[in-house]
Amino acid sequence: MNKITLGLIGYGNVGSGVVQFLHKRKSYFKDKFNIEFDLKTICDRSIKKKLPNGLDHIRLTTNYKKIINDPEIDAVIELIGGIKPAKQIVLEALRKGKHVVTANKSLLAMHGKELFQEAQSCNRNIYYESSVMAGVPLIKMLTEGLAGNKFKSLYGIINGTCNYILTGMTQKDLTFGQALSDAQAKGFAESNPTLDINGMDSASKLAILVSLTMGKFISAEEVYTEGITQISHHDIEHAESLGLTIKLLAIAKKSHREIEARVHPTLISKKHPLADVNGIFNAMFVNASPMGDVLLSGEGAGQMTAASGVISDLFQLASRVGCPSDQYLANIYREAPQTKVRKIDDISTRFYIRFMAPDKVGVLSKITGILSKHKIGINSVTQKAHDHWASALPVIMLTDNAQEKMLRVALDKIHKQGIVKSKPVAIRMEELK
Amino acid sequence: MNKITLGLIGYGNVGSGVVQFLHKRKSYFKDKFNIEFDLKTICDRSIKKKLPNGLDHIRLTTNYKKIINDPEIDAVIELIGGIKPAKQIVLEALRKGKHVVTANKSLLAMHGKELFQEAQSCNRNIYYESSVMAGVPLIKMLTEGLAGNKFKSLYGIINGTCNYILTGMTQKDLTFGQALSDAQAKGFAESNPTLDINGMDSASKLAILVSLTMGKFISAEEVYTEGITQISHHDIEHAESLGLTIKLLAIAKKSHREIEARVHPTLISKKHPLADVNGIFNAMFVNASPMGDVLLSGEGAGQMTAASGVISDLFQLASRVGCPSDQYLANIYREAPQTKVRKIDDISTRFYIRFMAPDKVGVLSKITGILSKHKIGINSVTQKAHDHWASALPVIMLTDNAQEKMLRVALDKIHKQGIVKSKPVAIRMEELK
Repeated sequence: MNKITLGLIGYGNVGSGVVQFLHKRKSYFKDKFNIEFDLKTICDRSIKKKLPNGLDHIRLTTNYKKIINDPEIDAVIELIGGIKPAKQIVLEALRKGKHVVTANKSLLAMHGKELFQEAQSCNRNIYYESSVMAGVPLIKMLTEGLAGNKFKSLYGIINGTCNYILTGMTQKDLTFGQALSDAQAKGFAESNPTLDINGMDSASKLAILVSLTMGKFISAEEVYTEGITQISHHDIEHAESLGLTIKLLAIAKKSHREIEARVHPTLISKKHPLADVNGIFNAMFVNASPMGDVLLSGEGAGQMTAASGVISDLFQLASRVGCPSDQYLANIYREAPQTKVRKIDDISTRFYIRFMAPDKVGVLSKITGILSKHKIGINSVTQKAHDHWASALPVIMLTDNAQEKMLRVALDKIHKQGIVKSKPVAIRMEELK
Repeated sequence: MNKITLGLIGYGNVGSGVVQFLHKRKSYFKDKFNIEFDLKTICDRSIKKKLPNGLDHIRLTTNYKKIINDPEIDAVIELIGGIKPAKQIVLEALRKGKHVVTANKSLLAMHGKELFQEAQSCNRNIYYESSVMAGVPLIKMLTEGLAGNKFKSLYGIINGTCNYILTGMTQKDLTFGQALSDAQAKGFAESNPTLDINGMDSASKLAILVSLTMGKFISAEEVYTEGITQISHHDIEHAESLGLTIKLLAIAKKSHREIEARVHPTLISKKHPLADVNGIFNAMFVNASPMGDVLLSGEGAGQMTAASGVISDLFQLASRVGCPSDQYLANIYREAPQTKVRKIDDISTRFYIRFMAPDKVGVLSKITGILSKHKIGINSVTQKAHDHWASALPVIMLTDNAQEKMLRVALDKIHKQGIVKSKPVAIRMEELK
């Protein structure tokens, strides 16, 4: 019998899910895997919390040192989130010789390099499957399942709140506000949804994935990030009519020594598998060499899905008792020299552009003139049917690949010269190749 | 530097892919993972085969004992396929203290239990990611990524040849014969495609997955198996008009102590993610508790995709040097007592039934009468438009859940009593819940 003694720090939603999981499956784990997880101590700010029946033997404390300093405890599960005091707790736990399981994406996105280095020098491991897409085993797929491959691109829908909102706007014709309230009513968005809808949650997750797969540790700050608050219902409708749909994509690409890492609303073909990933579902579409394309999707949030990732980490941990820890693939983070992150200005993508054009002769030629001066090729133009009541008509253009900086300059000129009625709307497109 | 000395047995399509992979990424593996894979010896029936430039140092032999008996070799990669002599080679390799990496689905499906037991008693591991869906990391997802979960159901498209053929019949209106020749012309079907189109290839893969996830070792013979050769273009069209599509699904379900394991053409909603898995792509849709639904898809065949799975196995192997091998999750196969495989006769599913009914009064009432006598509820009926030239008209019925045995008896009566012109066609439906 392989027995692992655990301490849990953070007894919130996910923490109590982990406790339930360990409790309900105790005998199953013994019978099938010959493993016993003994949860000895739980630390939480509020000591008042009740434990389920049958768990009265677990010690409750408000002082995490009671766990860190307990020589009987082999591994610490950190589920309080955020940087302070989580970072300190993880570092102390490693230094006290404990393995760490964490779902803390912000911590890993900001201090992953330091934490992994500390883990290595302490000859301990950090397990973090639930830090991205909760229990959907993306981390293991990238670090172990596709080990040895080189990653050309990652395209992910990794924030369920945004995907639920965009799905509602697309399928139920809701406004952003209506879709957000719906998400909040159903518990798919927090009362303060800022970090979800502004894209920062996705950026943290993408930073972790890039650091693991592309040979350079990057922080969330290095990910160009736009949220979904500016997406209008009109643009979703226009996109639909062009066979496109709008998703908040987390995108990473590597060519030679340059990495692109960005999170923004993105137009993709309705025919691509990611276009069918709706509601709270998450998905990651990976292009690896020589493997090819792989798609992994599932519920990327929720108490028990997150708990599932923590439990799978505990099994990895248990299966590595007595192993040289520095060979744990998911902890290998060596960086490739001279790898750089490409600035957003220098990135080329296709664009969807909506101009609100006055119904006058020559407007289109002025617009296209300025675009061509800035080396922006136009792939298609759709002018909506004439409407005598409207002072301006939407003109939708899909560009060829264009450099971000040039496009910004061109759209600015078109706007400032008063050729169009309002600030042009530009949304990036991806072919997902 | 962690050095693993390898012997490869079987230098065919996948074998040479593995050799290329190891050769091209040698320095990448050293730099990023601090791992060196030293391929010392290759065994193949035909010694004539040439090795790529720069690999002249690798020994070639026709005698596998040269690998099995070499004390320097840590692990054996078995890629000859089939049972004989593969089984003997794997057993001997384990007994000589070598770990084994294999892509041999037939071997694992037929003798997995014996091989895993031998591995355990030899304190060695068997790695087999490429045995199902090639390098798409399904084995690791099920055994490690979702470790601790209980698996309620698996629905898989795990044979690219059949999926390519059915996609061609559905999207290009090809007959089965045309779609098969197309697949053969493109190299997606073998000159003798029997094991693919009769479902046996999928059955072997499903047997492996069930053995790993549902607490009982089953062999391919215990999987109820129907191929796609009987699928007619008419039924694909009728299905489409009902919002359904036909896939060759490998299905496993577990409830209490009973397992369903079957491979057959299956009607599923066009809205389900598996309906969008087309061509040579494979996919597995898993329902695990408490994780929920997870979908994994990718190219489930091909030289380099299969090689990718072998390489990821080698990394697992290298990362477990010095580990207690009996804790390797993917090798844990304890069976749950009294688990049984349910007989197909006792399984209940919904059915699509096509009757060719003579255009006479009372036919429908006779059919429905017999069905109701056999407790088969009808969910919908579609009678195709009247056509004076046709001696019989297709009547399409979708049933509620009905027991296989009762349905067979009922259809037999309806046919024998001459109520319909030809043998009724019945295709199972799944809701994928």
